[in-house]
Amino acid sequence: VKIGIVGLGLMGGSIAKSLNQNHFIIAYDVDRDAIDYALSQKIIQAGDTNLENFFHGTKVIYLCLYPQSILQFIQSYQNQMDPGTIVIEISGVKTKIINAVTPFLNNNIDMVFTHPIAGREKVGVKYSKDSIFQNANYVIVPTDKNKAESLSLVENLAREMKFKNITQLTKEQHDDFISYTSQLTHVLSLALVNSEDTNLDTKRFIGDSYRDLTRISMINEPLWSELFLENKEYLIEKIERLEKSLSEYKSAINNNDIEKLKELMLEAKRKRMKIEGDDPL
Amino acid sequence: VKIGIVGLGLMGGSIAKSLNQNHFIIAYDVDRDAIDYALSQKIIQAGDTNLENFFHGTKVIYLCLYPQSILQFIQSYQNQMDPGTIVIEISGVKTKIINAVTPFLNNNIDMVFTHPIAGREKVGVKYSKDSIFQNANYVIVPTDKNKAESLSLVENLAREMKFKNITQLTKEQHDDFISYTSQLTHVLSLALVNSEDTNLDTKRFIGDSYRDLTRISMINEPLWSELFLENKEYLIEKIERLEKSLSEYKSAINNNDIEKLKELMLEAKRKRMKIEGDDPL
Repeated sequence: VKIGIVGLGLMGGSIAKSLNQNHFIIAYDVDRDAIDYALSQKIIQAGDTNLENFFHGTKVIYLCLYPQSILQFIQSYQNQMDPGTIVIEISGVKTKIINAVTPFLNNNIDMVFTHPIAGREKVGVKYSKDSIFQNANYVIVPTDKNKAESLSLVENLAREMKFKNITQLTKEQHDDFISYTSQLTHVLSLALVNSEDTNLDTKRFIGDSYRDLTRISMINEPLWSELFLENKEYLIEKIERLEKSLSEYKSAINNNDIEKLKELMLEAKRKRMKIEGDDPL
Repeated sequence: VKIGIVGLGLMGGSIAKSLNQNHFIIAYDVDRDAIDYALSQKIIQAGDTNLENFFHGTKVIYLCLYPQSILQFIQSYQNQMDPGTIVIEISGVKTKIINAVTPFLNNNIDMVFTHPIAGREKVGVKYSKDSIFQNANYVIVPTDKNKAESLSLVENLAREMKFKNITQLTKEQHDDFISYTSQLTHVLSLALVNSEDTNLDTKRFIGDSYRDLTRISMINEPLWSELFLENKEYLIEKIERLEKSLSEYKSAINNNDIEKLKELMLEAKRKRMKIEGDDPL
């Protein structure tokens, strides 16, 4: 199958790497260096900074764009796509994007909204890595317009990329959940680093825990500022729930209430163990 | 050198493993299984659930006990130690322990207060692993009573264990700093998990970021509840500073202030990059 990648950054490059053995990959990016690099590394079979040869014969297009750019791309180019093209969107928010884009979609194409829950604290095709998808989670948010065969094609491609759990959610379920597991997690990591205030050389006094919790603060800020705002209502609710949990620790500490502390810790440990599965309590 | 380990858990076992090539290791633990396991795995050369043969000829003792048990052990047993014995304490808080223990110390022994900033989300000697010390940070908090040669012996042992940065701090500097890099980090990870509230199967909707941020919530709650309370003043101050950072994100999100969000993110990214060193911005 001829697969198109729009936006050849970290995600577009990683998708190309994970599918280029069995498919013909063509990429489009405004950055000539990204295209040249990917061609020279045989990450893609074809690519350009214009869309001249991009759409013809392309059955599947991965839209690897920032949320704010998706609607414009669809409006500008959907008429140039082959009839029956499946357009796969991969951003980290769903409700706002689906609501914004679906009213403008041609019946010509089928747009599938998905979220590969994977990434790296790096920007650009040079850091792309197909192993980020291995055993990772993938969420598909079907709309009324999606054809069953489009959804199963998207699912099959996700399996080819080595995703482990592929789940269908409503857009509200997705955004609610992801505001907790992804956006809140990033807010926390960032706030932890922002709250540092010292003259000492931090790196001499940290362990793996601090290193792990703060890694994602090395963030792609143009992307994540959009993601935070696009999922604002759910995210604010999650920040407030987190503030409540924090204040429970604070008052237990203030009251020297060691039993309450242990109880909160045990609750967290039990919840977290469920994710690990094989860990003994 | 004959080195004694008091408390053969994760830390005691890891210390034994990292020193047993060049030294004779004897361990004491109330748990017979821990001793038997360590003997059978040749982690220690000798060990028992009583202290009968423990002190004689032992030049260095690592005290791998919970903070609350340290004073009692010293009071009960320091008279049985050989003159000149160096006792190395390794817990995660310093001011309260140093203040509690030093008034009772014999001149007979030299007690050195240290913090190997390393660990695992596991409990017990079976999970001990000497590689946790590799390239990790070690803090020594000297007291007025410490002899220079004791401090350099502790430092040499830390190098033998493969610690990378070994730094001397005052007890206040240590507790201030560690309340941020270690205790606050654990509070955050725990609170993140506590604030989860869903009927969905969390593990299908997480990525590496959530997994990394919540790993340390699989906590040893008897130990960490003590650590939180022993370092209460500094920790509360850090939680409050974190709450302030969180509220900055919250209001930027509420105000759709994308420029403020990016500014906060860039500040965090720059701070975090300093730790990484080799990462490009």
